[in-house]
Amino acid sequence: GYAKIDSHRKMRSGFAEVVFCQGKRDEFLLEIFHRIYKDEGEVMGTRASLAQYELLHKELPQVTYDPVSHILKIEKKDKKRSGLIAVCTAGTADIAVAEEAAQTAEFFGANVERIYDVGVSGIHRLLSRLEVIQKANCVVAVAGMEGALASVLGGLVSRPVIGVPTSVGYGANMGGISALLTMINSCANGVAVVNIDNGYGAGYLATQINRLGVHDEEA
Amino acid sequence: GYAKIDSHRKMRSGFAEVVFCQGKRDEFLLEIFHRIYKDEGEVMGTRASLAQYELLHKELPQVTYDPVSHILKIEKKDKKRSGLIAVCTAGTADIAVAEEAAQTAEFFGANVERIYDVGVSGIHRLLSRLEVIQKANCVVAVAGMEGALASVLGGLVSRPVIGVPTSVGYGANMGGISALLTMINSCANGVAVVNIDNGYGAGYLATQINRLGVHDEEA
Amino acid sequence: GYAKIDSHRKMRSGFAEVVFCQGKRDEFLLEIFHRIYKDEGEVMGTRASLAQYELLHKELPQVTYDPVSHILKIEKKDKKRSGLIAVCTAGTADIAVAEEAAQTAEFFGANVERIYDVGVSGIHRLLSRLEVIQKANCVVAVAGMEGALASVLGGLVSRPVIGVPTSVGYGANMGGISALLTMINSCANGVAVVNIDNGYGAGYLATQINRLGVHDEEA
Amino acid sequence: GYAKIDSHRKMRSGFAEVVFCQGKRDEFLLEIFHRIYKDEGEVMGTRASLAQYELLHKELPQVTYDPVSHILKIEKKDKKRSGLIAVCTAGTADIAVAEEAAQTAEFFGANVERIYDVGVSGIHRLLSRLEVIQKANCVVAVAGMEGALASVLGGLVSRPVIGVPTSVGYGANMGGISALLTMINSCANGVAVVNIDNGYGAGYLATQINRLGVHDEEA
Amino acid sequence: GYAKIDSHRKMRSGFAEVVFCQGKRDEFLLEIFHRIYKDEGEVMGTRASLAQYELLHKELPQVTYDPVSHILKIEKKDKKRSGLIAVCTAGTADIAVAEEAAQTAEFFGANVERIYDVGVSGIHRLLSRLEVIQKANCVVAVAGMEGALASVLGGLVSRPVIGVPTSVGYGANMGGISALLTMINSCANGVAVVNIDNGYGAGYLATQINRLGVHDEEA
Amino acid sequence: GYAKIDSHRKMRSGFAEVVFCQGKRDEFLLEIFHRIYKDEGEVMGTRASLAQYELLHKELPQVTYDPVSHILKIEKKDKKRSGLIAVCTAGTADIAVAEEAAQTAEFFGANVERIYDVGVSGIHRLLSRLEVIQKANCVVAVAGMEGALASVLGGLVSRPVIGVPTSVGYGANMGGISALLTMINSCANGVAVVNIDNGYGAGYLATQINRLGVHDEEA
Amino acid sequence: GYAKIDSHRKMRSGFAEVVFCQGKRDEFLLEIFHRIYKDEGEVMGTRASLAQYELLHKELPQVTYDPVSHILKIEKKDKKRSGLIAVCTAGTADIAVAEEAAQTAEFFGANVERIYDVGVSGIHRLLSRLEVIQKANCVVAVAGMEGALASVLGGLVSRPVIGVPTSVGYGANMGGISALLTMINSCANGVAVVNIDNGYGAGYLATQINRLGVHDEEA
Amino acid sequence: GYAKIDSHRKMRSGFAEVVFCQGKRDEFLLEIFHRIYKDEGEVMGTRASLAQYELLHKELPQVTYDPVSHILKIEKKDKKRSGLIAVCTAGTADIAVAEEAAQTAEFFGANVERIYDVGVSGIHRLLSRLEVIQKANCVVAVAGMEGALASVLGGLVSRPVIGVPTSVGYGANMGGISALLTMINSCANGVAVVNIDNGYGAGYLATQINRLGVHDEEA
Ligand SMILES: Nc1ncnc2c1ncn2[C@@H]1O[C@H](COP(=O)(O)O)[C@@H](O)[C@H]1O
Ligand SMILES: Nc1ncnc2c1ncn2[C@@H]1O[C@H](COP(=O)(O)O)[C@@H](O)[C@H]1O
Ligand SMILES: Nc1ncnc2c1ncn2[C@@H]1O[C@H](COP(=O)(O)O)[C@@H](O)[C@H]1O
Ligand SMILES: Nc1ncnc2c1ncn2[C@@H]1O[C@H](COP(=O)(O)O)[C@@H](O)[C@H]1O
Ligand SMILES: [Mg+2]
Ligand SMILES: [Mg+2]
Ligand SMILES: [Mg+2]
Ligand SMILES: [Mg+2]
Ligand SMILES: [Mg+2]
Ligand SMILES: [Mg+2]
Ligand SMILES: [Mg+2]
Ligand SMILES: [Mg+2]
Repeated sequence: GYAKIDSHRKMRSGFAEVVFCQGKRDEFLLEIFHRIYKDEGEVMGTRASLAQYELLHKELPQVTYDPVSHILKIEKKDKKRSGLIAVCTAGTADIAVAEEAAQTAEFFGANVERIYDVGVSGIHRLLSRLEVIQKANCVVAVAGMEGALASVLGGLVSRPVIGVPTSVGYGANMGGISALLTMINSCANGVAVVNIDNGYGAGYLATQINRLGVHDEEA
Repeated sequence: GYAKIDSHRKMRSGFAEVVFCQGKRDEFLLEIFHRIYKDEGEVMGTRASLAQYELLHKELPQVTYDPVSHILKIEKKDKKRSGLIAVCTAGTADIAVAEEAAQTAEFFGANVERIYDVGVSGIHRLLSRLEVIQKANCVVAVAGMEGALASVLGGLVSRPVIGVPTSVGYGANMGGISALLTMINSCANGVAVVNIDNGYGAGYLATQINRLGVHDEEA
Repeated sequence: GYAKIDSHRKMRSGFAEVVFCQGKRDEFLLEIFHRIYKDEGEVMGTRASLAQYELLHKELPQVTYDPVSHILKIEKKDKKRSGLIAVCTAGTADIAVAEEAAQTAEFFGANVERIYDVGVSGIHRLLSRLEVIQKANCVVAVAGMEGALASVLGGLVSRPVIGVPTSVGYGANMGGISALLTMINSCANGVAVVNIDNGYGAGYLATQINRLGVHDEEA
Repeated sequence: GYAKIDSHRKMRSGFAEVVFCQGKRDEFLLEIFHRIYKDEGEVMGTRASLAQYELLHKELPQVTYDPVSHILKIEKKDKKRSGLIAVCTAGTADIAVAEEAAQTAEFFGANVERIYDVGVSGIHRLLSRLEVIQKANCVVAVAGMEGALASVLGGLVSRPVIGVPTSVGYGANMGGISALLTMINSCANGVAVVNIDNGYGAGYLATQINRLGVHDEEA
Repeated sequence: GYAKIDSHRKMRSGFAEVVFCQGKRDEFLLEIFHRIYKDEGEVMGTRASLAQYELLHKELPQVTYDPVSHILKIEKKDKKRSGLIAVCTAGTADIAVAEEAAQTAEFFGANVERIYDVGVSGIHRLLSRLEVIQKANCVVAVAGMEGALASVLGGLVSRPVIGVPTSVGYGANMGGISALLTMINSCANGVAVVNIDNGYGAGYLATQINRLGVHDEEA
Repeated sequence: GYAKIDSHRKMRSGFAEVVFCQGKRDEFLLEIFHRIYKDEGEVMGTRASLAQYELLHKELPQVTYDPVSHILKIEKKDKKRSGLIAVCTAGTADIAVAEEAAQTAEFFGANVERIYDVGVSGIHRLLSRLEVIQKANCVVAVAGMEGALASVLGGLVSRPVIGVPTSVGYGANMGGISALLTMINSCANGVAVVNIDNGYGAGYLATQINRLGVHDEEA
Repeated sequence: GYAKIDSHRKMRSGFAEVVFCQGKRDEFLLEIFHRIYKDEGEVMGTRASLAQYELLHKELPQVTYDPVSHILKIEKKDKKRSGLIAVCTAGTADIAVAEEAAQTAEFFGANVERIYDVGVSGIHRLLSRLEVIQKANCVVAVAGMEGALASVLGGLVSRPVIGVPTSVGYGANMGGISALLTMINSCANGVAVVNIDNGYGAGYLATQINRLGVHDEEA
Repeated sequence: GYAKIDSHRKMRSGFAEVVFCQGKRDEFLLEIFHRIYKDEGEVMGTRASLAQYELLHKELPQVTYDPVSHILKIEKKDKKRSGLIAVCTAGTADIAVAEEAAQTAEFFGANVERIYDVGVSGIHRLLSRLEVIQKANCVVAVAGMEGALASVLGGLVSRPVIGVPTSVGYGANMGGISALLTMINSCANGVAVVNIDNGYGAGYLATQINRLGVHDEEA
């Protein structure tokens, strides 16, 4: 097919290719999964449907699927994880995106602590978990609606905060644009932002940052 | 001139007319100040320039001017105030709008507590003032940039929170639209929003709410 | 699960938690309804589908469902209501949102008067109901399309007006953004705005305001 | 110069050319005023500055200037006017735009009734002038901020209403876009909209409509 | 039900009520059709689905339905039509909206000439029909994509042009906002605009204008 | 300084570097003009102020300045021009942008025909110039307000049309965004668009296209 | 029907009419295909569904359909192609739009080189194909998400680059608006832009440009 | 004054407070500079005007000012720097923002390599500097107009890339929103974004990341 194999990538970036499954045609999905699996001994896909899982599972029975994060993968056994990333959400509806971030980071070798449903409408929930959050090399803040969680976290930790606006909400949330603007305009320092619902991108970036914070052989 | 005197207004609303000075021509400003002062024995104007103050001061030497709130007024002596409104700001740059709200509420007979520069990037500053905020009949949350203060306050008090987005910030704050969207999408309950930089409107509405909470003759 | 029980909330706010049903997974919805019902002796959910009603009804046959407001609830018998809230709509298509507001306020203990289909294209309909509207402690103005109702009401009453823009309309209504802008720019005083189609938020805030206006034990 | 003389225009449209003065260079302004004055025996310019007036006045001392509407003109004596157009404004700040509309219509031969400062925040002011408004062949509704006046008028008259959104307001008025959206989404029938602050366009269109309603020789 | 009968309307406006069918619940649609039919001897509904037609047809077999305009109606026999309205479209995809306009105008008693598929990408098609267009009392210009038709027509006729932007197109047409902006910014005089896809509103307004142009008993 | 000399450019593109003068600091402007003049024997700058001209003129007295296009240049004598580009404008206010396009194309060796003030509100002006326009290898359509000129030209010629939206207009023109959307949504084929007010970009692209159409040594 | 046959078109433009199939009703699609096929001996339609193919195939068994580009056509045998157009995509998801461009250009007689999946996240893929790209008379750059490919190509070639933003992506891509803005603001010279997902328009324009570059009888 | 001293901050975050000078009133600026200087022995302010420099310089003659970055500061002597941050710009006009980032990072103890004017329109300029860029712990990509630099860098390095959109450009750049959208939609992994023109925020975040990458005492 027309798809170019980015064979330099792992060398350049330290990360193997991850498949963006949404909208991929069946034969192409099969081919690319086989190819990466053969090259890397493991493979991960994001935004996969149940039907795509079933398709792949027939040919590659080792494939597993998580309906919350919509991640499909075959993962090597006994991979070591290092460092620490904290993944926080404002509400329960943001967990799907948060799991995409968390599982991406885990696949790439990071330890992840999940701190979910700690949005600013009940700030004590967040404050009670502060100790573990402050231990992480990087904090991922996943929030829809008004997305204020990223700013509050930015003010509470000394490590980078990655804001992931989500499309959770309705009306003037404009599919996540409102939360995106909130995070971009953060009055707290040390906050940067990725695309709406882009858990994968946040997990990837958090892994890059976490690797810098691991001071021996792992990263 | 063409201006209609809304003589019903005080009867209908319980509030005398306040002058929106910005852009008014001199002769018109003079005429309307004289007229309301004669009818009410006091008069207030918002968004006034220093030049407008000097103009009015020549004819009405009792007029005072506050360069922070840009409020011009002649106020009756010994007015009694009742109830309590808390006016909070995220930063120091939001104080101009907050003072417009606070002084409007005071002019209309409310007690006001000012809690300024308590934005979410240093949440302990807000938490340390919670006791007084929770005593108010109504809380006004004034914030620019990402405007997260309104949501955090909404989660901490049992009384109505009026969000006032400000145009403070730059870039993707889009002149305050970003803070407005944040407040409209608040994940906390009990938050309603007025126009960007509309301290007057917030002070007016807070007074209406405060009057309901005052259980004897005043309201 | 990951959901945090906000056990402080009722204490902090005077309101029990209400379930946002839309998009919740079945097992989670069941668990949270059971839990709140056990704690509070009653429970309410908004934006529920018929299928969610049927699911809950099997386990909790006391649950009732209103297909107009999409509210699911089990309500205590013989609750006393106090004060008065007026809920007005511009058209008949706005009634779904208005009922969410009205039933939320009633669940939280307020008396509600409904004044529907009194939009500004036939202003005499509104004027003929003015007496009852002016008696309320708080007025909720629900309108889509150009959303002018909130401003007109703001000019006619002395109590706070909560504007609820709706997504009713088409074309340049932009899913309710147009009505939201109208209400935020209201030339009348005493108008504040909640999110598009957020009847629940308006009902909650109206209850807070109404409680302030009730001068004895109830609120 | 490069400017094309649209010599067909009056024949095609029944209206002589009007000069848009804003931003025109001096020599061009002089040339075009002279030319039209010679052809038509009269000439009108909109959005003119005081400096432009002074420039023209030196060469054409008959030129008059109105600093409210920013209209420059030399008008034939004893022109007959026919029909009736009602020009209404929400506030006093909208009068500049309204006068551009009114004076354009008068220049083109229509009778104009001005009904200013009758915005929806005090609806009785409008209702008290209804009789004269209902006599007009066409109603021009000039309003900024939330622009609700056009809808209310649309519901009260049987003749066409031309909405002119103005840039009056601040914050989320977005330079008049908010009022424009309000008018375009009008729930009342018989309302059409021209560009923000386009008093000239409204006066032109109102004249076209008024001419249709004049049943003898004038139109 | 909650729906208010606007009994003043015909008196005030000269037009009977028309039903906006989209989204109306069945029982309500039936009730309102029966009621208006009884009062007026005829009735019209817009944006009706085939299913709504079938529902009404069972009870009112005289009802007819046009799947292009989505208009449902029972119309009096032998109604006289007067004057002339020209309804033009840019493409064939705009015809649905144009027919809503044309049939509305015909229902209200106007003669209508249809000039379809004469968009600016082949300007000779429009020029060849100019004679009939110039005879009309009012021109309706229906166009999606870039919506340039309204400006071109505005430059060619002496009567009012009503622009109806449509949602026809894709990509940066933004559901019709692009065509709406084009028409609002028209460089030609005598153009006013209604909402996207609002054929009904254009037909109504064109009828108002046409009635003014009819110089005997009809209007 | 930090500025990189793009020494490959002429080789890669066939065009020497042009200086974007707006906002450049004096010393930098002088340095870069000297350098390019030395390398190429000629040099051009766009968006230059009169003050910048005076600055350069002191050191390089051969520099000329055109206050309409804001182009500064030293041009080789006796350059040959080939092919033909037609540059059209809707109004006279668009001429500044059009001249930037025309003079850029001439500097790069194209013949240019100017057809100005032929906007769609008087379509006969354009039609009367069609013969020369149809002879060009490329047509540049410069228009603000509703920007319909590009579509009309697209329907009349067989060569590429480059649309240049301008910021000419007010209100809902949104600084040129409206004209940009019009041109991007063109219903005519063969139209492509550059940035608002980007006469330089259009002149450059037109030159590239014109060169393809010149069938001998010049291009 | 109301559809106008644009009989001048081929003469004026050198291109036969192409059918925009999306949303066309069956009988109309059949009629127009038959008619053009009869006139031209070949016919092409874009944005066709499989169902439309099946419909046409029954009556015109020579019709072929490509499910990637959604192009339906009957093409003359042994058509000669000339010149060269390079069609590039950033990712594999952009190929559908690219094929619409490529096949349109081929239908109109151009040679096309496809260079797919060479987006800027792995720039070496693009650089390795530069030689063939630089040979083309025109380059089409098809990209969604951030759409940076057009700028990079603009800096690398001497021929015109046509940017086609696609709706590929999610979140803040806003259905392609983001990629459109990127391309319109290109810092490279020689880039012009067509509508989002408008492969047809790009193919048409590229053909016009390619024809200019072919120096003998073909164009 | 009302300003709260955030005395926890350095403890919480590891960074002393930096003064946002823009719009601060003189007495306040003086007070806060004195205070921080006394506490920390050094102090930095961003977005300062020349006038503010002169004001401070009178009282604190050690203050220095850089007119490019608009940074005011008194810095400790002999501070050690560690790690490496690469700051890249697309054009020369982006250097002001880049210097704000670079000098912030240096003030907080990082080594900075500047790679300016390497935008994507001449990609070889960037490629020739790749070696040093790939050595950095963090890369800051500063770009206006279409902002493609961030994506290209994201594809070339293994460390985090912080995109800083700038307001450089005109027309559809919409004050930097276009570049912001480009960067948020980056097709390359490992890119996160801060507010438009927010060099300070990027420098802060880059310092946080760089500190993680420094494996001994410094960070
Ligand atoms: N959920 C995601 N969001 C954004 N990018 C992704 C996601 N999952 C994978 N990717 C990226 O998309 C690339 C694959 O795109 P494609 O060539 O279309 O398969 C991968 O190499 C990843 O860099
Ligand atoms: N219709 C609604 N719109 C907005 N917020 C709601 C609505 N219904 C309930 N809520 C709020 O959403 C919270 C529950 O959210 P969750 O934790 O996702 O169940 C409740 O405590 C309410 O504050
Ligand atoms: N008016 C203009 N609009 C857009 N780009 C321009 C303009 N004038 C010159 N340029 C481009 O900007 C580049 C110079 O940018 P700079 O490095 O900032 O001087 C030139 O090489 C041209 O490609
Ligand atoms: N995919 C496409 N996108 C934009 N325009 C198209 C496309 N395919 C065909 N066209 C144009 O649309 C015209 C037909 O439109 P219609 O009159 O609605 O059938 C053709 O003459 C082409 O100019
Ligand atoms: Mg929750
Ligand atoms: Mg502070
Ligand atoms: Mg009704
Ligand atoms: Mg007034
Ligand atoms: Mg057609
Ligand atoms: Mg002209
Ligand atoms: Mg790929
Ligand atoms: Mg440069």
